Amino acid sequence: MIDRGHHPVEPWRLRETRLALDDLAQSESLFALSNGHIGLRGNLDEGEPYAIPGTYLNSFYEARPLPYAEAGYGYPESGQTLVDVTNGKLIRLLVDDSPFDVRYGFLTRHERSLDFRTGLLERDVDWTSPAGKRIRVTSRRLVSLTQRAVAAIEYTVEAVDQPARFVVQSELVANEAQPTLSDDPRVAAVLDNPLKPVGHDGGDHGSVLIHRTTHSRQLMAAAMTHEVEAPTRFEMTQDIREDWARTTVICQLQPGEKLRVVKYLSYGWSSLRSETAIRDQVAAGLSSARFSGWDGLVKQQAEFLDDFWDGADVEVQGHPELQQAVRFALFHVLQAGARAERRAIPSKGLTGAGYDGHTFWDTEGFVLPVLTYTMPDAAADALRWRHSTLSMAKERAAVLGLRGAAFPWRTIRGEECSGYWPAGTAAFHINADIAEAVMRYHRATGDDQFIEEVGLELLVETARLWSSLGHHDTQGRWHLPGVTGPDEYSAVADDNVFTNLMAARNLRAAAEMAVQFPAVARTLDVDSEEEAAWRDAAAAVYVPYDKELGVHPQSEGFTGYAEWDFEGYKDKYPLLLHAPYFQLYRMQVVKQADLILAAYWCGDAFTAEQKARDFDYYERLTVRDSSLSACVQAVMAAEVGQLDLAYDYAYEAALIDLRNLHNNTGDGLHMASLAGAWTALVAGFGGLRDQSGCLSFDPALPQGLTKLCFSIRWRGVRLTVDIDSGSVTYTVRDGEDASISFQHAGEELTVTAGTPVTRPLAKRVPLLGRPTQPVGREPRPAYAGGGH
Amino acid sequence: MIDRGHHPVEPWRLRETRLALDDLAQSESLFALSNGHIGLRGNLDEGEPYAIPGTYLNSFYEARPLPYAEAGYGYPESGQTLVDVTNGKLIRLLVDDSPFDVRYGFLTRHERSLDFRTGLLERDVDWTSPAGKRIRVTSRRLVSLTQRAVAAIEYTVEAVDQPARFVVQSELVANEAQPTLSDDPRVAAVLDNPLKPVGHDGGDHGSVLIHRTTHSRQLMAAAMTHEVEAPTRFEMTQDIREDWARTTVICQLQPGEKLRVVKYLSYGWSSLRSETAIRDQVAAGLSSARFSGWDGLVKQQAEFLDDFWDGADVEVQGHPELQQAVRFALFHVLQAGARAERRAIPSKGLTGAGYDGHTFWDTEGFVLPVLTYTMPDAAADALRWRHSTLSMAKERAAVLGLRGAAFPWRTIRGEECSGYWPAGTAAFHINADIAEAVMRYHRATGDDQFIEEVGLELLVETARLWSSLGHHDTQGRWHLPGVTGPDEYSAVADDNVFTNLMAARNLRAAAEMAVQFPAVARTLDVDSEEEAAWRDAAAAVYVPYDKELGVHPQSEGFTGYAEWDFEGYKDKYPLLLHAPYFQLYRMQVVKQADLILAAYWCGDAFTAEQKARDFDYYERLTVRDSSLSACVQAVMAAEVGQLDLAYDYAYEAALIDLRNLHNNTGDGLHMASLAGAWTALVAGFGGLRDQSGCLSFDPALPQGLTKLCFSIRWRGVRLTVDIDSGSVTYTVRDGEDASISFQHAGEELTVTAGTPVTRPLAKRVPLLGRPTQPVGREPRPAYAGGGH
Repeated sequence: MIDRGHHPVEPWRLRETRLALDDLAQSESLFALSNGHIGLRGNLDEGEPYAIPGTYLNSFYEARPLPYAEAGYGYPESGQTLVDVTNGKLIRLLVDDSPFDVRYGFLTRHERSLDFRTGLLERDVDWTSPAGKRIRVTSRRLVSLTQRAVAAIEYTVEAVDQPARFVVQSELVANEAQPTLSDDPRVAAVLDNPLKPVGHDGGDHGSVLIHRTTHSRQLMAAAMTHEVEAPTRFEMTQDIREDWARTTVICQLQPGEKLRVVKYLSYGWSSLRSETAIRDQVAAGLSSARFSGWDGLVKQQAEFLDDFWDGADVEVQGHPELQQAVRFALFHVLQAGARAERRAIPSKGLTGAGYDGHTFWDTEGFVLPVLTYTMPDAAADALRWRHSTLSMAKERAAVLGLRGAAFPWRTIRGEECSGYWPAGTAAFHINADIAEAVMRYHRATGDDQFIEEVGLELLVETARLWSSLGHHDTQGRWHLPGVTGPDEYSAVADDNVFTNLMAARNLRAAAEMAVQFPAVARTLDVDSEEEAAWRDAAAAVYVPYDKELGVHPQSEGFTGYAEWDFEGYKDKYPLLLHAPYFQLYRMQVVKQADLILAAYWCGDAFTAEQKARDFDYYERLTVRDSSLSACVQAVMAAEVGQLDLAYDYAYEAALIDLRNLHNNTGDGLHMASLAGAWTALVAGFGGLRDQSGCLSFDPALPQGLTKLCFSIRWRGVRLTVDIDSGSVTYTVRDGEDASISFQHAGEELTVTAGTPVTRPLAKRVPLLGRPTQPVGREPRPAYAGGGH
Repeated sequence: MIDRGHHPVEPWRLRETRLALDDLAQSESLFALSNGHIGLRGNLDEGEPYAIPGTYLNSFYEARPLPYAEAGYGYPESGQTLVDVTNGKLIRLLVDDSPFDVRYGFLTRHERSLDFRTGLLERDVDWTSPAGKRIRVTSRRLVSLTQRAVAAIEYTVEAVDQPARFVVQSELVANEAQPTLSDDPRVAAVLDNPLKPVGHDGGDHGSVLIHRTTHSRQLMAAAMTHEVEAPTRFEMTQDIREDWARTTVICQLQPGEKLRVVKYLSYGWSSLRSETAIRDQVAAGLSSARFSGWDGLVKQQAEFLDDFWDGADVEVQGHPELQQAVRFALFHVLQAGARAERRAIPSKGLTGAGYDGHTFWDTEGFVLPVLTYTMPDAAADALRWRHSTLSMAKERAAVLGLRGAAFPWRTIRGEECSGYWPAGTAAFHINADIAEAVMRYHRATGDDQFIEEVGLELLVETARLWSSLGHHDTQGRWHLPGVTGPDEYSAVADDNVFTNLMAARNLRAAAEMAVQFPAVARTLDVDSEEEAAWRDAAAAVYVPYDKELGVHPQSEGFTGYAEWDFEGYKDKYPLLLHAPYFQLYRMQVVKQADLILAAYWCGDAFTAEQKARDFDYYERLTVRDSSLSACVQAVMAAEVGQLDLAYDYAYEAALIDLRNLHNNTGDGLHMASLAGAWTALVAGFGGLRDQSGCLSFDPALPQGLTKLCFSIRWRGVRLTVDIDSGSVTYTVRDGEDASISFQHAGEELTVTAGTPVTRPLAKRVPLLGRPTQPVGREPRPAYAGGGH
């Protein structure tokens, strides 16, 4: 866990003032740079020591067989694993004849910082070699948000008190050694030497290595070139082999003199294009980067981020650590989605290969809500990626004996890669989550062209899936038996409330949009009979309710199960590593918000009292072994008036990686929870809702938060919501006469540019007392009644 | 499928008058010989052609890793696979220089027959070599039922019309090549060269090869010795290597002259004993076999079988094919269980390595009922084997967070080897099936010593398991959510009626026996509180019932599921190879009798009308993709008065392998269905029930069956039940004044030795009409209204 003493709380950056070798894996994830296209873990420039080396290209994967002790029909046979590709981050250094390695010699100072406004990872090292030569190394690294094929490093070394000879070896290395990982099923499969050399070349304009994966037949190239500044004569040479390229710069520096090397990197990959096309592509990337130059790249990066923060920043007063954490979170969500551009946004972004680099419902359910309101084009791109995989989803549905499209539970390229169907194939709700993301994007942007091009087809094919999955009983109620909802400690249950309600939303949305876009609907063979069938099923959806307890069972029968032995397992979390699925499934224990997520996303299906009682009931049962839970609990805690508890959950969601709360930040950041930090604040304390088609807010702050200010984009206009303990002010920021209509705490408001509107806040009174959580799983308090 | 034209219907043997190379796998299984200790598939003496070579030793297995695409807590990591051990059946023959191979030359005659009364597999071949030499080969093979380590072959060759030189090579061969098998999950894993040589030796008294498995560290030895009779000079030599031993006999025969070689085989194996102990053990086996001589072994075999048939034969008149089939079935059940002696009885016996040679609930649920009434000591031995694995079952329960013992769903040695928990670990009913087998054995034999030594502990530890698996709801009803019943097209369901009722029986039986055997109960730490808790849970067991439909749902909610698309899948059986589990699980489609098995085994929990309505309802849904179904449907069809349908199912159960109805007889015989043929007749048309502790009969014959006569052993006395269309006669056969009390059609009867009692039969009137089955899954008619 990172040590707050060496990670000062600062509003706009994450800084580490001491290198903790035991926490390398975590810091490699925290300091990862990415633009959604390329991802570089925060490994040290010199490569070693490392916990997990990592250079990732979005969707660049190797296929591997999925084994089964007992196979079954329709089980996916081929998995996909994100590949650690050619490492271009490497810059090794020799000082006289000592390799610069922080494990040897004397490290007087080692500071790294990631600045959320410049997008640079900076490092500042003061080191004395075992032979007594003191040097200073500074490096700045970026993955360009404006030139998506490009990364760059500025590397400077200085002789401090004695003359020294410096040898800088800047490298590209393919097929790095991989550490042996644990048996935890959430950790990635390890691939040995996944890259087969295809070609390599070097010359005045740099070096390039071209490789191909064996099974997935994907081609990639990595190229580098350098600019060197030295106060004196230096020599520069180049070596290239199949699996590595090395540019060596040698010079002798006097005390106070500096050698500066700028390394430009370019990556290209494709499963379709030829070796020569890829080679040219990376050469173009390099040329473009050199044309901008280091300073140009740095400037572009800052401009891009200024623009982002101007529309997306969340300002928090009263809790500096939460302020830092939510910006850290937004920065990484931006990095994951900014330039993914019709490729997937994985659950770890490109910060690690945990979960094999797969994309889950995390994207549509947790990351896209943030992007929709802060960077809507990135949300559209992510959904266009889903659409590009539609043919695979339709094939999968056909294999399963279903109609429409069955999107994969986990995948890189689009094929189902889940090797455990009760928590994979059976979790059909991902299809409704995608449909909801389509509708959310359309509501927030009004982008009809998106609906015409991809949105309607996604809605229609997912509606067809639900239509073939559900059936009516003799009383005409529409059921979905045998599916798995969000809670992974239940599986293959009947009439999961979340799934049933979301499926009904999906069906209604498809019918509604098909009516609004009749020409496109016709091309998809939708007729009025089909629309009517969708509406009818949605209207007849069965929602189980336990009258005796006055709460919704998560799925039919759930509230009749025995309660989990929370006391007996109080020090055995996550439970999935200590108890068999069959026990978890048959008892009242909840991994993550499920019924409570339904109460959030499908809030109109619940009365206020039901929400309060359901929240209270499920708090006792929810262990948050999933990172997708705290943010949802934060939102609903706020809605039912448990503001202090909401604060605790918002804090947990935001701090998940900074505090390594799930003990696996080293495998990559939890993108959904980081996005959830925004949601916890904006939907929780801001009360943002949009599910009914109408935007609404209902702000309320917990004790200790003195101010919360955020902006969202709504149909091309920015709206700023500025909340303090007594009032909220809504400001429209774009255009001369732009206006936005929405509800504030049930009141219809229209706010026009230049004319902010302020409303006082009513005190929120909870129906019930603060609920308890399973022993050992109480959230840590965000607010200690004073400072932090 | 075997061709009736070349398999004449004969009452006491299975004869094949033509060799069908396409059906070799099936005939190898049908002609398999075993004593429960050693199993030899019916491979040709000369080894080739073969479909699947097979020599098996009970419980001799190799361990192999069980792989998972996504692992989970408590998943078994090591599987067990029956090993094809050193082949001692091999006798190759050269005629001049042509190898005797039925695929070459001219095969004028090739007849094999398996005689159920002599226990010999006989072969008679008339062959002309490609070079024109006509010869006759006859062989007789036995696996001794009286000397369990011994098998023997009498091999005779004759020159028919020209002089010829004969070279007989009798061999032991380890690590035979294995055929590549299909992807069907029911087929065994293939092990390459599982046997590592440990020692080999040869001399005047024979040859021996000793091997060990690599991972399971089991040691085995195979030894052979020979007696040769020739009308002229012959030479005999011996070669031995690590993986093979060969005894060669050469002589020149004139037309009409015969060479006779008797080969004695002995096998020994152990996971504990040393190499020298095993070597001595097989040498002793050989000595003993030679001492008896071929004729002695043949005579002992016939005596053993005479005794068996005297107490176990089922005589059927009106259907010669069924008569043959039921004796074939009983013969193989005998072979599987006769000398298993505290080792497992696998689901395929020792006739093939299908299902990896594993033992399932088939043993206690289907095979032991037959052995209990025909060979009770074998039933006791099988249960003593279970008891010997109790420590593993207790460890497994502890891993799963449960109390008591959780016996494995599938195993060879006792560890859980199921790699798919929803149809493995979750099928806890196997524990109640074992408890029921204990109680059944005790009811039928009155063997208190058995209860004291092993029975009570089995009852107590399984009761403890149930006690930790179930819970009471707020109304005090006792539930078992999230378990899997017998029907493998449903899984992880709540309150499966079969499981709930069987668990309650298990609990009651444990409480009852603990009271009867208090001293033993004390050693097991059972006190009156625990007994009371068992009785209370059993009394409060929840049994779901669908009032609207007037039937029991198989599990809670089952009758509300959508009906399977039987029409769409009418040519896609078994469904598990054509549809995903999740679809099968969430719809009304039943692989095998489940609720209907509850109506049979727990008949006192159902009214007669409920049985009739339930039977009718589930007939429409049951596809019989399991071989454990037809026999149960036969019994309940008979009970509800559907006698003709019962006849069809009895026929199907009996003919399953002779007609290869499941297309996988080649992987081994379906021991449970063969045992079920007995059950279909005895419990179906004889109406035998014993579950309430009191023996009862209620006979009724279907149209076409003119007589059914069977015997059972009840507390040391044989009772013969002789049924014709109008009456039944009960005869007690042992002792001078032995008597048996039982119910006949509700009437209490006591029958004494020497005084048979005859009763007329009432006509059985069904409540409902003959039900229909899923399209394409109607049983084939047993009775065509005339002859066959």
